[in-house]
Amino acid sequence: MKVGFIGLGNMGAPMAKNLLGAGHEVIVWNRTASKAQPLQQQGARVAKTPGEAARDAEVVVSMLADDAAAEAAALGPDGIVGALPKGAVHVSSSTISVALSERLTKAHADAGQGYVSAPVFGRPEAAEGKQLWVLAAGPKAQVERVRPLLTALGRGLTELGEKPSSANVVKLSGNFLIASMMEALSEAFALAEKSGVERAAFLDVFKSVFARSPIFENYAGAIAKGQTTPAGFALRLGLKDVTLALEAGRAAEVPLPLASLLRDHFLTGVAQGRGDEDWSALGALAQERAGLQKKS
Amino acid sequence: MKVGFIGLGNMGAPMAKNLLGAGHEVIVWNRTASKAQPLQQQGARVAKTPGEAARDAEVVVSMLADDAAAEAAALGPDGIVGALPKGAVHVSSSTISVALSERLTKAHADAGQGYVSAPVFGRPEAAEGKQLWVLAAGPKAQVERVRPLLTALGRGLTELGEKPSSANVVKLSGNFLIASMMEALSEAFALAEKSGVERAAFLDVFKSVFARSPIFENYAGAIAKGQTTPAGFALRLGLKDVTLALEAGRAAEVPLPLASLLRDHFLTGVAQGRGDEDWSALGALAQERAGLQKKS
Amino acid sequence: MKVGFIGLGNMGAPMAKNLLGAGHEVIVWNRTASKAQPLQQQGARVAKTPGEAARDAEVVVSMLADDAAAEAAALGPDGIVGALPKGAVHVSSSTISVALSERLTKAHADAGQGYVSAPVFGRPEAAEGKQLWVLAAGPKAQVERVRPLLTALGRGLTELGEKPSSANVVKLSGNFLIASMMEALSEAFALAEKSGVERAAFLDVFKSVFARSPIFENYAGAIAKGQTTPAGFALRLGLKDVTLALEAGRAAEVPLPLASLLRDHFLTGVAQGRGDEDWSALGALAQERAGLQKKS
Amino acid sequence: MKVGFIGLGNMGAPMAKNLLGAGHEVIVWNRTASKAQPLQQQGARVAKTPGEAARDAEVVVSMLADDAAAEAAALGPDGIVGALPKGAVHVSSSTISVALSERLTKAHADAGQGYVSAPVFGRPEAAEGKQLWVLAAGPKAQVERVRPLLTALGRGLTELGEKPSSANVVKLSGNFLIASMMEALSEAFALAEKSGVERAAFLDVFKSVFARSPIFENYAGAIAKGQTTPAGFALRLGLKDVTLALEAGRAAEVPLPLASLLRDHFLTGVAQGRGDEDWSALGALAQERAGLQKKS
Repeated sequence: MKVGFIGLGNMGAPMAKNLLGAGHEVIVWNRTASKAQPLQQQGARVAKTPGEAARDAEVVVSMLADDAAAEAAALGPDGIVGALPKGAVHVSSSTISVALSERLTKAHADAGQGYVSAPVFGRPEAAEGKQLWVLAAGPKAQVERVRPLLTALGRGLTELGEKPSSANVVKLSGNFLIASMMEALSEAFALAEKSGVERAAFLDVFKSVFARSPIFENYAGAIAKGQTTPAGFALRLGLKDVTLALEAGRAAEVPLPLASLLRDHFLTGVAQGRGDEDWSALGALAQERAGLQKKS
Repeated sequence: MKVGFIGLGNMGAPMAKNLLGAGHEVIVWNRTASKAQPLQQQGARVAKTPGEAARDAEVVVSMLADDAAAEAAALGPDGIVGALPKGAVHVSSSTISVALSERLTKAHADAGQGYVSAPVFGRPEAAEGKQLWVLAAGPKAQVERVRPLLTALGRGLTELGEKPSSANVVKLSGNFLIASMMEALSEAFALAEKSGVERAAFLDVFKSVFARSPIFENYAGAIAKGQTTPAGFALRLGLKDVTLALEAGRAAEVPLPLASLLRDHFLTGVAQGRGDEDWSALGALAQERAGLQKKS
Repeated sequence: MKVGFIGLGNMGAPMAKNLLGAGHEVIVWNRTASKAQPLQQQGARVAKTPGEAARDAEVVVSMLADDAAAEAAALGPDGIVGALPKGAVHVSSSTISVALSERLTKAHADAGQGYVSAPVFGRPEAAEGKQLWVLAAGPKAQVERVRPLLTALGRGLTELGEKPSSANVVKLSGNFLIASMMEALSEAFALAEKSGVERAAFLDVFKSVFARSPIFENYAGAIAKGQTTPAGFALRLGLKDVTLALEAGRAAEVPLPLASLLRDHFLTGVAQGRGDEDWSALGALAQERAGLQKKS
Repeated sequence: MKVGFIGLGNMGAPMAKNLLGAGHEVIVWNRTASKAQPLQQQGARVAKTPGEAARDAEVVVSMLADDAAAEAAALGPDGIVGALPKGAVHVSSSTISVALSERLTKAHADAGQGYVSAPVFGRPEAAEGKQLWVLAAGPKAQVERVRPLLTALGRGLTELGEKPSSANVVKLSGNFLIASMMEALSEAFALAEKSGVERAAFLDVFKSVFARSPIFENYAGAIAKGQTTPAGFALRLGLKDVTLALEAGRAAEVPLPLASLLRDHFLTGVAQGRGDEDWSALGALAQERAGLQKKS
């Protein structure tokens, strides 16, 4: 396929290389032109503007740092929207806002072009080794059309329906999950350290018990399903344990703001009559705060 | 070994059974006596009080629901402390407070007895299948003495030093990690659902990308080590992404209190000059709040 | 009246002096005996133990620093409960926990004595100048009996029913209100300062607009009443303004955790269909979290 | 003075009326034209566009609902910026974002016009009765020029320097203070109610002790000054009391998320060695989170 590739940073460069390696004809653009040289040596052509990379392409893939860069490349002068042929598709892999994704969806539709949102999970090493996990959302026919490119980039794909911005919501949610786990770990390490537990020992416990176990997966399944009775572990015991963690934190003088938040949510659950449900009823509480119907 | 076993609930009963199965001589006690019958049929003797179960034991293992039950069994009338022979060891596997663990440490020491704190990770099925992960903290000689029992209960063991309450801190921290992940998932599912993403699709992403991958393990390692430069993913990008998640939440009318907390911490990091460090600098921020020295 | 007075700290000493000045016969006790000398010169007798101060008293007033001190003075050896005559009343003005207040209520009732909880608002200067505001809760007859003492201590009195611990709840809530206002001010000053506004100018605005105006009083009335329609200022405008404050905070790099919390609550209100109610519907949200019936 | 007035909502209409009453020549514009009739009867002229109201004016005052309305009136077709004479001044009283205020500052400067940001505190009744409190920020000469108008609108004025957006920061901070006090009251009322205290009684305490007293003013002064030693009330006592409030909340099953946040901040203060400072050191903690220098 004739592919334009916009953005050759730590992630974009290995992705473009993998498209070349899969036999596609690739024309690349990067704001700092020198970064295009290695790809040129591997057979890519180099464009002077995003528009030039899009002009003859069947598909343009973009991988840029933020909303400002993505907006400029797509909607700015000599941008993708102004140049891409009717019927061709823009695959946007950047981690951008839902709002910008919706604006791009509309701009491409207005121009008779396709738009598939396809952000990825994985670090530069994963991009290099075709180990990314790709999300894809957009009109079914368009997703089908770009599928060979998406499968050339990673180890797997989850399709998220016809609305492109859905993939952005999920990508942002994924980064939110990582940050949440880091915050939880950060507070737990601080508590452990100040209580006299070696960081290495705590890390050993985390690796042995949690890291690759089915624990988190099982709880994710429980929350997705929304069934909270019978309780495997009762919400009021969750309240008890997180309160004990906070008391340990007070004794050791370690603030645990995430634990405080959990305590408030567990206590809300108990106050609202959910004390004997499973502690995964945190999911139902989040739904209620959001004005969603209870599933259980 | 001659072992007293106190508490035959969902966790305690299979644990006691596994000690019997490993060839130990077990005398059990439970508040509701009828629960002792199955074990009696498997060869256990049944005591009328915790003290009776402790009187001739080399080791007493207790597995009770909360501080009140654990305190009554150990320190109440006809309790463990009053009956256990000098030199014998009490292994406390209950999830109890750090404060009670410290009181029990002292009470046993005053009575010339040993005390090892040994809470476990795992659900009743894991207890049944000897798949628990055991934490152990206490004087080295005492831990050595009870090691055959601990290894009969689970698939592995992490030792956490000579101070028994360290194991309680780590057990409470572990439950805190689970609850944190559940809260993060709960908010993410609510955001996804109200944005039109199927819960099953989001669950698929979680399983494919996060659940058994080394991601969380790698971040745990980064936080334990405390090295935040060079950045793999800059803290200011973490701020960007969690802010975008909050904006998506506002547009879809989904409150994300954990994301708000993360945003405040990332913004604190940026304000304090850490914007270009790795986003795992959340760990350093937690240390600073706790008055600990920076490691980096 | 014959009055025992327990605790001569910054608050207790001027309170005891005012009771002397009102013509009562006062016998004082303080852990550090030297603090009793000035009162002795003004006519007080000095006891060696709390029990001695209580032995012949009609009423004992205690004003101590925390739960530990209050518990020791009342329930310890040579304490108030063991010595106070049947029918006499203990007036507890210390800021103590609800739980301890309930234990003291029971202990005095068991001993045939009365117990009135009477914590006060005001700093040492207010105690000196009889400007304290006194809360009083306890059986009606007992409150009547000690009323002459309570009115000798301050400028006014609010009665809070027959359950002594109600006064402790209200006292703790009052300190919580002060701390909340301080936190809000702290964040606002940081935002103002980092945005280039002089602290003195911001203070001037606070004094001119908020400090002694009826604003807070009016909102307190609105929340107490629970009527949220028609809206004076719509909750969705509250969401708008606190979001703008957070955006200003991000631009100036000032974390505003209390504003984040408010945003989540306002957004919950909007998600649950309260966007057009008055922003004082924060009160209804707090009731719902607590499992209380809606008032509106 | 010849004054254009843009926006005749609940606030704008009485403000325009007061300018008429002070003898100014006023030409008004409102999106819904019918709202202009009462003012027309009082002597105002009516314009068909914001630009028409601005064309011959010495000063244009605008009072609009949000960023979208303010942006359209100022920067849209037939807007203020396109029509206002060079040297004339736009006084913006709307509660808008800092970012928009900065854009308007620039747009007016580019057009050779003046821009003063002058948001107000007060409800419609206060606007009616000339009881608003006015903030004013902008170049000194411009503020002087519009001063007669600002003093005709309210009971007083605080000047906030030459940067117009400073007034917007302070206005947003003010609304944040109100919302914070409402949240604190909401949680306190829920705690009181569920603990059996009448809402009316709690309201009485609030009015008697806090509402118009110098308490909040004194703490605002303490935070502005940043002096935290000697302590009037030690931060570790603040931690004690807010922890007791949380314990009362747990016993009554009332979540208190603002109290949780305060507890974490007080505990951070204690962990960082500030336990013996005054509890107004919350201010210093906010400064540190923001990367500002400590004042103490």
